[in-house]
Amino acid sequence: MTTVGIIGASGYTGGELLRLLLPRDDIEIVQATSRRYMGEPLVMVHPNLRGIAGELRFSSDEKVEKCDVLFTCLPHGSTMTRMDDLMTSADHVVDLSADFRLQDPDLYSKWYGTPHSAARLLPKFAYGLPELHRDDIKELGNASGVGCVATSVNLPLYPFREFAEKVVADVKIGSSAAGNSPSDSSHHPERKGVIRPYAPAGHRHQAEVIQECGMDVMLTAHAVEMVRGISTTLHLQLKRPLEEKECWSILRKCYGDEPFIRIVKSKKGLYRYPEPKILEGTNYCDIGFELDRDHNRLVLFCAIDNLVKGAAGSAVQCMNIMLGLPETKGLEFPGLHPA
Amino acid sequence: MTTVGIIGASGYTGGELLRLLLPRDDIEIVQATSRRYMGEPLVMVHPNLRGIAGELRFSSDEKVEKCDVLFTCLPHGSTMTRMDDLMTSADHVVDLSADFRLQDPDLYSKWYGTPHSAARLLPKFAYGLPELHRDDIKELGNASGVGCVATSVNLPLYPFREFAEKVVADVKIGSSAAGNSPSDSSHHPERKGVIRPYAPAGHRHQAEVIQECGMDVMLTAHAVEMVRGISTTLHLQLKRPLEEKECWSILRKCYGDEPFIRIVKSKKGLYRYPEPKILEGTNYCDIGFELDRDHNRLVLFCAIDNLVKGAAGSAVQCMNIMLGLPETKGLEFPGLHPA
Amino acid sequence: MTTVGIIGASGYTGGELLRLLLPRDDIEIVQATSRRYMGEPLVMVHPNLRGIAGELRFSSDEKVEKCDVLFTCLPHGSTMTRMDDLMTSADHVVDLSADFRLQDPDLYSKWYGTPHSAARLLPKFAYGLPELHRDDIKELGNASGVGCVATSVNLPLYPFREFAEKVVADVKIGSSAAGNSPSDSSHHPERKGVIRPYAPAGHRHQAEVIQECGMDVMLTAHAVEMVRGISTTLHLQLKRPLEEKECWSILRKCYGDEPFIRIVKSKKGLYRYPEPKILEGTNYCDIGFELDRDHNRLVLFCAIDNLVKGAAGSAVQCMNIMLGLPETKGLEFPGLHPA
Amino acid sequence: MTTVGIIGASGYTGGELLRLLLPRDDIEIVQATSRRYMGEPLVMVHPNLRGIAGELRFSSDEKVEKCDVLFTCLPHGSTMTRMDDLMTSADHVVDLSADFRLQDPDLYSKWYGTPHSAARLLPKFAYGLPELHRDDIKELGNASGVGCVATSVNLPLYPFREFAEKVVADVKIGSSAAGNSPSDSSHHPERKGVIRPYAPAGHRHQAEVIQECGMDVMLTAHAVEMVRGISTTLHLQLKRPLEEKECWSILRKCYGDEPFIRIVKSKKGLYRYPEPKILEGTNYCDIGFELDRDHNRLVLFCAIDNLVKGAAGSAVQCMNIMLGLPETKGLEFPGLHPA
Repeated sequence: MTTVGIIGASGYTGGELLRLLLPRDDIEIVQATSRRYMGEPLVMVHPNLRGIAGELRFSSDEKVEKCDVLFTCLPHGSTMTRMDDLMTSADHVVDLSADFRLQDPDLYSKWYGTPHSAARLLPKFAYGLPELHRDDIKELGNASGVGCVATSVNLPLYPFREFAEKVVADVKIGSSAAGNSPSDSSHHPERKGVIRPYAPAGHRHQAEVIQECGMDVMLTAHAVEMVRGISTTLHLQLKRPLEEKECWSILRKCYGDEPFIRIVKSKKGLYRYPEPKILEGTNYCDIGFELDRDHNRLVLFCAIDNLVKGAAGSAVQCMNIMLGLPETKGLEFPGLHPA
Repeated sequence: MTTVGIIGASGYTGGELLRLLLPRDDIEIVQATSRRYMGEPLVMVHPNLRGIAGELRFSSDEKVEKCDVLFTCLPHGSTMTRMDDLMTSADHVVDLSADFRLQDPDLYSKWYGTPHSAARLLPKFAYGLPELHRDDIKELGNASGVGCVATSVNLPLYPFREFAEKVVADVKIGSSAAGNSPSDSSHHPERKGVIRPYAPAGHRHQAEVIQECGMDVMLTAHAVEMVRGISTTLHLQLKRPLEEKECWSILRKCYGDEPFIRIVKSKKGLYRYPEPKILEGTNYCDIGFELDRDHNRLVLFCAIDNLVKGAAGSAVQCMNIMLGLPETKGLEFPGLHPA
Repeated sequence: MTTVGIIGASGYTGGELLRLLLPRDDIEIVQATSRRYMGEPLVMVHPNLRGIAGELRFSSDEKVEKCDVLFTCLPHGSTMTRMDDLMTSADHVVDLSADFRLQDPDLYSKWYGTPHSAARLLPKFAYGLPELHRDDIKELGNASGVGCVATSVNLPLYPFREFAEKVVADVKIGSSAAGNSPSDSSHHPERKGVIRPYAPAGHRHQAEVIQECGMDVMLTAHAVEMVRGISTTLHLQLKRPLEEKECWSILRKCYGDEPFIRIVKSKKGLYRYPEPKILEGTNYCDIGFELDRDHNRLVLFCAIDNLVKGAAGSAVQCMNIMLGLPETKGLEFPGLHPA
Repeated sequence: MTTVGIIGASGYTGGELLRLLLPRDDIEIVQATSRRYMGEPLVMVHPNLRGIAGELRFSSDEKVEKCDVLFTCLPHGSTMTRMDDLMTSADHVVDLSADFRLQDPDLYSKWYGTPHSAARLLPKFAYGLPELHRDDIKELGNASGVGCVATSVNLPLYPFREFAEKVVADVKIGSSAAGNSPSDSSHHPERKGVIRPYAPAGHRHQAEVIQECGMDVMLTAHAVEMVRGISTTLHLQLKRPLEEKECWSILRKCYGDEPFIRIVKSKKGLYRYPEPKILEGTNYCDIGFELDRDHNRLVLFCAIDNLVKGAAGSAVQCMNIMLGLPETKGLEFPGLHPA
């Protein structure tokens, strides 16, 4: 039985961790903290846990219980100040904030506008994307989370990174990515039905693309009418023409054995390319492509659930790796159709 | 040229008044107040006015400009304390809060839980539903607004009120009815896609039904996935069986000349009964019905736009009546399909 | 290993059966038929099965393979003509059409307007709602499916059936309930955002309520903006006043041990009553209530996923009962939040 | 009084023409044809016209009534075969199909895969985008309609066309653009909530961009969760760096006097860039921009209502020009907020 603690468990990623871990018979949740909801039952905030959370309640995060794996879901910037301490409570830490994603403290300070206050801990954390860092994650035993937008760019771009001259990333993202705190921009009458450019240039997750793919992209993000999900379209100006077979081969070589990456490109049916709506709740990353020969352009499509593959799901996958378990354990939900 | 002031113009009903009045060449907006947005251009809050609001800005409501017609859109409870004063600034007042809807101060205190602090002004205000109080509105020169839920019950029920033994009112309502202030319950990830019972019993608008129809109803309201709109289904247990022709005749007799009431009951097409989605932005109240002979039940369907017929549209209709103008002036928008 | 066949597997309920059964290691799918898609891979029609359906393809239903459990998902009316034959292929049949739901052939012919052509088989089928017919299902070894609307009425009403004088059932239902064939009324520009009364009176599922609860209800159904889900509000005129405690006790006595029925009634949080959106993909039936003492009315709220508890999920639960397995096996998905 | 006929009036663009023209007191609709709905009242298909269409019914298109202005809304390919004939019935023709948009018959046959059968009529038609062809429209007296996707690219790109090295056009479009015929892909359970790439490369509207802007673009279109609306993001690789002021100046110079083009770029409020949801039913084209200096990229945002500015609204604007009327006549609807 592996013991698990979750610091900051009332947010959406905390809720997803609970959904993924509570049903498992090899995991025991020893602590789920929330300052705002301390003492309240988990199900008050996460009503989908009514059948599986029993009488569990949020506790304070002042005292962190010893556990095998600690997931930290605190706001960006506040984790790094506590990490030294947190690491003493657990054999493994998976931190879902942005604090330990960038291994170069200079890259961090450039994109986050402030120096990293725990830079010496950075080498202890692998970048928590199993497809690219499986061995590091196993070896270091600690992992960062991943940026959800970054993941929707990194996974499709990585295999083609050396073929791309320039890359435009046009991102469409659901409302859950902004977290569970109400604001003017999340107010239903204002948010419903939008296609709202919210980061025309300079999105912070670009830093994770620079780190992982070794190249910068021109990224523009739009808030769209979904709760969960990211759909990213990458427009690659190619260095040299590619054939369709070559693309298939590149993708299969890179991801052929990955349990959570599916190449989606069909000539029949309605779901010919990746679509986030059938990925809700799953840990899949669907990748599709089409060649625009007239313009020597490769169009890559990527869809994920921002809260799962883009956050809690990849984190659980990291935990499975650290513990030597099958990577897919607890992440088997196939998704719903229709939905 | 009629001069108009709007006190509390940054909310959704204030915005609708501006949308309806700014394009009119017989109306001049002399003041639109907002405490929160004082000094900001109207279009910052009401982006749909970009083409028609020019450089107009929100002003303070500390000094109320003289005008012919003053619309007050302040929170419930705060209007009554200022009404004496406000009435000195204008020939006509239309108050969109709940403060002057109930003519009996006892009814008010029963449903709002607090005594009415300006009860002696109540006789100066007509209940602002033109279909039922056209003459009063004209004569008194001041009107309350109407409760949006109340209107979706009153208009279909009124013609049948003497035929009904008991009435269940099952109300479905959009998110704009809760106003423009963000809250946990209006947060997009939580509000999207719900069918959320929010007033199983005891909704305050029942008081307006008691006043207008002379009978109580059993009302349950649900928040549903719309921004604008109310769809109300009334289930009437009839005192005696009715025939379809009789129902048509009752409705036509009551509403045959009403410019904004349409009887919607078709045997063909997709839109056989009232539906709020094709009423967005319009001042229509669509009423339909079906007889359930097995149970001596009459089912009435009503759809309105809560912000228009249920608020600003009826208010403008009242103003038109007070000024001796055609009632439909400025309210001609027919609605969109598809939408 | 239990062998399973699915006749009519390309529709939405067939797809749900596949989603629920394919991941199970105690089940082998030996056949999934579709006339329209014969020879095509399952995933062309059910894209959510991409990770779990492997190379499986639809087969013809002309030859029905022997299996332990046969699920039939054919259109209403066409199953009864083949049932004799189908029953020879399997130890157990669960029929998701309406053909074997009504045990009284007269009730069938009254509501479906045509005589039942296999009336003598009716006694071989239990009504497939485990909460009310667990023993029958086990004993007879064959079960009908359940009407989704009927289930959303029967489960909340059953415990209170003797307390109710009259019952209004106001039903809100998602688009998947109409199946996967396009039509004018399912065309996205026309269907999106509606609250469309589609069965003001005389909905066929009332027959299942008469059978199960022994009383008729006044049912009106509305198509609303959801794909999956039913939210039903029952307005019960009570024979005598009930107290809140008594209601709790009645519900607990009836459903206290049921794994898929949850009483949802909270004073805190956003999800105080049942809501379909957090039930997508789950087999739960959430039931809530509120007393309207002024009118001696009990308001019951019920939410289910029409494709799961209202169809495939209950069917799998029946199969588990027939096979002597834990009822919850394969039905553990807790649902998503936010969603 | 101008007499107007509409051939093919039961589709969505036909419905929009009726919505825009029926309320006008300077226009008389002499004919609205539909083969499928011949003899039925207009309101059966266009329920939003209930207040303004009176008893008007669809007629056959076999006999085309004489009129001043004839709008043709027939399927692509079928108009050209009848145009000779149609032009004899009216002083002015505005054709909303694709048949007369491309002035070069070779461009037509390249993109539509078939020779143009009425090439000699092409010089009689102006490309019906008033902002770029006001004089032609006036002079020739006949106009094509515009491609809705093309318009969402042409209007923002045109002023910057000489500054762009390469252009990626990432298009998001609502379901009404596919017309009013049901199909598997428009079936609500399948279409709701999608971000579905449907034209990764080679969208036909690119031909109109080549014609109008003199350059090709790399266009990828996605079906998204809207009924009306297009949101297009253009990523321009610039030939030389531009400053923000310069961009403002370029846009103002080109569009400063245009009644239906608004530059939307704010530092405050929620609606800082163009968004289709507040343009439903309006003839506006909102254009915004942001500079990505790190990559010498200009990001242009464009939003329109595909059925209005992208079809019927521009067509009415063309008619106004032909008739010497104010261009905005009948197109004053400002749009709704919230919506």
